Amino acid sequence: MAKVILKGKKNERIEKGHPWVYSTEILNIKGNYKPGDIVEVYLENGKFLGKGYINPKSQITVRFLTKNKDEDIDREFFKNRIIKALNYRKQLNYGESYRLIYAEADFLPALIVDKFNNTLVIQTLSLGMEKYKNIIVDILVELLSPKCIYERNDAPVRELEGLELKKGVLYGELPEKIIIEENDIQYYVDVVEGQKTGFFFDQRENRKAIEPFVKGREILECFCYTGSFALNAAKYGANNILAYDYSDDAISLARENAKLNGMQDIIKFEVGNAFDILRKFYNDKKKFDVVILDPPAFVKNKKALEGALRGYKEINLRGMKLLKPGGFLITSSCSHHVNDELFFNILMSAAYDAKVTVRIIEKRSQAKDHPVLAASEETSYLKFYILEIY
Amino acid sequence: MAKVILKGKKNERIEKGHPWVYSTEILNIKGNYKPGDIVEVYLENGKFLGKGYINPKSQITVRFLTKNKDEDIDREFFKNRIIKALNYRKQLNYGESYRLIYAEADFLPALIVDKFNNTLVIQTLSLGMEKYKNIIVDILVELLSPKCIYERNDAPVRELEGLELKKGVLYGELPEKIIIEENDIQYYVDVVEGQKTGFFFDQRENRKAIEPFVKGREILECFCYTGSFALNAAKYGANNILAYDYSDDAISLARENAKLNGMQDIIKFEVGNAFDILRKFYNDKKKFDVVILDPPAFVKNKKALEGALRGYKEINLRGMKLLKPGGFLITSSCSHHVNDELFFNILMSAAYDAKVTVRIIEKRSQAKDHPVLAASEETSYLKFYILEIY
Repeated sequence: MAKVILKGKKNERIEKGHPWVYSTEILNIKGNYKPGDIVEVYLENGKFLGKGYINPKSQITVRFLTKNKDEDIDREFFKNRIIKALNYRKQLNYGESYRLIYAEADFLPALIVDKFNNTLVIQTLSLGMEKYKNIIVDILVELLSPKCIYERNDAPVRELEGLELKKGVLYGELPEKIIIEENDIQYYVDVVEGQKTGFFFDQRENRKAIEPFVKGREILECFCYTGSFALNAAKYGANNILAYDYSDDAISLARENAKLNGMQDIIKFEVGNAFDILRKFYNDKKKFDVVILDPPAFVKNKKALEGALRGYKEINLRGMKLLKPGGFLITSSCSHHVNDELFFNILMSAAYDAKVTVRIIEKRSQAKDHPVLAASEETSYLKFYILEIY
Repeated sequence: MAKVILKGKKNERIEKGHPWVYSTEILNIKGNYKPGDIVEVYLENGKFLGKGYINPKSQITVRFLTKNKDEDIDREFFKNRIIKALNYRKQLNYGESYRLIYAEADFLPALIVDKFNNTLVIQTLSLGMEKYKNIIVDILVELLSPKCIYERNDAPVRELEGLELKKGVLYGELPEKIIIEENDIQYYVDVVEGQKTGFFFDQRENRKAIEPFVKGREILECFCYTGSFALNAAKYGANNILAYDYSDDAISLARENAKLNGMQDIIKFEVGNAFDILRKFYNDKKKFDVVILDPPAFVKNKKALEGALRGYKEINLRGMKLLKPGGFLITSSCSHHVNDELFFNILMSAAYDAKVTVRIIEKRSQAKDHPVLAASEETSYLKFYILEIY
């Protein structure tokens, strides 16, 4: 097994539990290896740091699989990790649909598995994990007896690993319609054409958190995707809901979801650009009791940060201005590069410009099936606020 | 009405909504006033900032009541503010017991009202608010028809305002036993001798958040006070719970609470010093599935910060060491002076010393009846984590 030697006498980040070795940290590599092979990582002084798979094409050159030198990386290893991830989810009482494996935070770097009832959707987002894909599929079949395992490996991040983009059935047969249940609401999920794996489980408890603030109220939602917040608002007694997304496909599915739950008379789903919609209602002097904003990640990388910050500020500023006094702004950011403090400062800056007073009613992050590995800030990304605006 | 003129051309903090004027910010005061009177606050250039009550004895010399020059500070003013606070709580569906008024965050500075069924406990923690106490009691009687309003004005913070410490019945008759219900658990509350107003409503949802992690498990709790986390753990199916507090009175009431809920066979409440208890179990090599730490504020002021940080680190470090792999540390800090980042860093430092890997399962703050005024970091104080430890 090749040995990767890191520069310096210590590496605090890795020794505190961060799961990656960057290319710039490597002094030299002793022994032969092929891309995707398991390697050992050491400090220059010989201290063992862990074992992981290597990809010299990637800036994240090694991703650790274990810090235990005696642990072999074989089928048993992956089975134990997957059982651990499964047992953790079972105690959450999340029903039959949830994120089963959340990559680094489940000690299975670059592996995502979402469970939609009997259908599993898998992403192997690194070369190292790609090599174990068949073994992982085999273990998932053994442990969960799914009807289908579908690969959504069309995520652009795979290109950084030199991997092709592809999707398709890996096991079984894809059901014609997949219906999941979350918080007593049913959803059609399009695992083939939907965003990411088809559904965002990360907002699970946040959707429930809106309960006290929607009853009998008039609600505007932007970036509604397939309608999850709007459907929850309807369930909790909202008077009426206008919900917009820029994607025709998302709105079609959102409308089907409304019908599936008998909520088509309460929610009006329309195709529309959030920035335009927010501006239009402002010009029309329209006011709402609640505004919900759940935009996609405006920042995919650090370079795009400045434009993204402007985007976040604009939608939140406009959202605040559309609220009646005492109304609620329910707002999220899923951009990892916009951290907690930065997002909060954007909201405060928007409030200052909008000349409103803000009470923070609830601040939350991602659902418990997306645990955060404390040593890896990359595993923490979702910010969610319920703000009362005067 | 006297006019308080502030130094400088602007005051960003106040203009962003912070509710206090510090003595050091005042240039001069024009006109006569008595301590506790309503005054107007201006910048040197004549810009009106707001109206509030003044106490020249306090470093917080003025606390704003309104930013609206035309709003009179009279019975109607207080009634409107209290109705607003009440309506906000009603939508939360918190039942009959909750914090009804949370001071600055309800735009009623230094006023606390906790509702324990038909008994209200009031604190007027500043001279200005003390002067309106009778009016406030009168409004509370009008709006809520309580059986009793009890004053817990024995909080030492009143001394900074030059106020005496006292407690007693202000209206009606104090029931012999007060029983409240929260999350389907009943509690005796001692509003006369208990800490603060007798019960900590601020952990309400946090107590519920432990649900997925306690079933069938062995649990240690330190700083249990009258038993709320232990009782919730029992409700959610914990196998057995050892719970400690240094106060005899708290443990007596905790035992009564266990009996009241038929949980006396599951929970063992004992008097004990948390630091000693944690050390003893460590020396005995005892391990638990879950450790719960809910200490009182170790930091009452900035001077005591360093010692408090050591205290937080020690209990969390020891808590982590008492856990079986995959166990949960459920840990809080209610010290305002230990902010989010500082508390997180303490936890990470404890994890490093304990040589454990941490997953953040949930991070929460105070209950929704303790909303946070975004412009006033003083209104935000509770940090609550569920950490999984390997």
